Amino acid sequence: MKKLINDPEAFVEETIEGILAAHPTHLRRVPDTPRGLMRADAPVAGKVGIATGGGSGHIPVFLGYVGPGLCDGVSIGNVFASPSIEAMVAVTRAIDSGAGVLYLYGNYGGDIMNFDMAAEMCEMEDIRVATVRMRDDVVSAPPENEGKRRAVAGLFFGYKIVGARAEEGASLDEVVATAEKVVANTRSMGVALSPCIIPAVGKPTFTLGEDEMELGMGIHGEPGIQRGKLQTADEVATVMTERVLADLPFASGDEVAVLVNGLGATPPEELYLLYRRAHEVITGNGISVHKAFVGEYATSMEMAGASVTLCKLDEELKRCLDAPAYSPFLLQG
Amino acid sequence: MKKLINDPEAFVEETIEGILAAHPTHLRRVPDTPRGLMRADAPVAGKVGIATGGGSGHIPVFLGYVGPGLCDGVSIGNVFASPSIEAMVAVTRAIDSGAGVLYLYGNYGGDIMNFDMAAEMCEMEDIRVATVRMRDDVVSAPPENEGKRRAVAGLFFGYKIVGARAEEGASLDEVVATAEKVVANTRSMGVALSPCIIPAVGKPTFTLGEDEMELGMGIHGEPGIQRGKLQTADEVATVMTERVLADLPFASGDEVAVLVNGLGATPPEELYLLYRRAHEVITGNGISVHKAFVGEYATSMEMAGASVTLCKLDEELKRCLDAPAYSPFLLQG
Repeated sequence: MKKLINDPEAFVEETIEGILAAHPTHLRRVPDTPRGLMRADAPVAGKVGIATGGGSGHIPVFLGYVGPGLCDGVSIGNVFASPSIEAMVAVTRAIDSGAGVLYLYGNYGGDIMNFDMAAEMCEMEDIRVATVRMRDDVVSAPPENEGKRRAVAGLFFGYKIVGARAEEGASLDEVVATAEKVVANTRSMGVALSPCIIPAVGKPTFTLGEDEMELGMGIHGEPGIQRGKLQTADEVATVMTERVLADLPFASGDEVAVLVNGLGATPPEELYLLYRRAHEVITGNGISVHKAFVGEYATSMEMAGASVTLCKLDEELKRCLDAPAYSPFLLQG
Repeated sequence: MKKLINDPEAFVEETIEGILAAHPTHLRRVPDTPRGLMRADAPVAGKVGIATGGGSGHIPVFLGYVGPGLCDGVSIGNVFASPSIEAMVAVTRAIDSGAGVLYLYGNYGGDIMNFDMAAEMCEMEDIRVATVRMRDDVVSAPPENEGKRRAVAGLFFGYKIVGARAEEGASLDEVVATAEKVVANTRSMGVALSPCIIPAVGKPTFTLGEDEMELGMGIHGEPGIQRGKLQTADEVATVMTERVLADLPFASGDEVAVLVNGLGATPPEELYLLYRRAHEVITGNGISVHKAFVGEYATSMEMAGASVTLCKLDEELKRCLDAPAYSPFLLQG
């Protein structure tokens, strides 16, 4: 692993500068908040604001999902670390049109502590704040402890669907209800093949043998459920898809959206090999695929690995998934 | 490097199967041609057809650039190998509406031989065929030998701009003129940090020391101009951008589109660090950026590395670049 970076301490700030230089009309900084960005037209009159945020190193998560039909603002932490409470509060103030703000983010300890504190501070300023945490990783906690599960690539379905619901003009309560439905209906499982290096740390987040993989490993290198010899794409896709299907459980007659996500270094060709087998397993169970997404939707820098996410759809979720959205990282027309 | 694949000999076919399963309404196979795909609505009445093709292992190049506003058909070779003449001829027949077909592809020996032979065969069937080859890699041959240069990520600007020109209803001669203008106006330079493995070969395409990079290396591992110690993102971006600027040469007052392309394993964060510095160098020379693209537009599986491409725009090229286009790999609305 070799990194094309400058000063490791400047990594996050310089990445943001690059993104603002490349897409100058799309995002802007929240005033006096270097680590807070919002869509160019925020606040949008009458619309519920959606704020997200988390550690850097996962592009397009999080700031790639800010834009029309997606989130309104984002606070940005150091690599794999929570954003500050101050940034969260500033973003919330900047995007609130008076209709309230939903905090929609991943179920990680540091983020929870800071977002909860930010929510309290905003409530004292009479900004109504609600919170929904994505927690789609099926192997990160057993079903009876579902509230402790981590978020992984399922965040994408959260942003896309909940963003569209807010864009429709739904109230904060309605947006929360949609977000909770997405959480209830979304499940993921991943595999890791190689680690990444946090720039300011300078050494790999974990080690894996040259012929090894770890099923269920989290996107920050959290322990998975099985370390073993590298398997074929079909074997890996089968294990991940079957585990995801059994967890909800998804059932014959269901209609789903599918995401095969690459963590960074896994080529698109291999992601399509995984999708090919996942599709066979899904449709073989009598489940139909409304829409498939294959690519890098939530990364961990140069990690090699992938995940399979299913989201069970009803008419509302389908309408919101298919609605237009725009950011330089995601365009759906 | 670890690959999530099945039988290496089935790699290309299974990748195509995965893509067709994921995006069933977008592409379809040319009849009796496993290695030929076309947009679902081809042939489009009255429109000049654009056919491309080349070796596998570069997604979204080539088949990701087939769709409305892009190419009409693609023939697909083994990894890093030319497609067959038979596939090229079948694709040409399938997409020709009577308005003629442009072969738009990269300047590589095997592809040239086969596309030229396919063109001859199609002419005998009274299908009018023209050819334009992208050759944007500035270090692959000196300016006086510009016709020998290889194509790299500049292919993206070819497909996007020329595809839009054909969609406008331009004649074959007009489409060729636009394509030749794109070739004349587009320049790239790349850097490689690590090799990839061709599945059927099973060993890395080249070796680079743990702290080394190679400036100017081609996307198949073709030798570059300088192997040396890994430099910072700013240093690498400066060298690549200045070399590209000097080659055309681009001049103060020019308006350009910029692409910072990742070869596969280089994270989006690092591509934005490169863009940040490239943007400084470009605008510091009095050149304005009409539009920036940052991401994986032409890959080499799990290679780490990146390139900088500039395309000098006039009103026609700008209009075509900004026109709508759609494929599951590229959406511009």
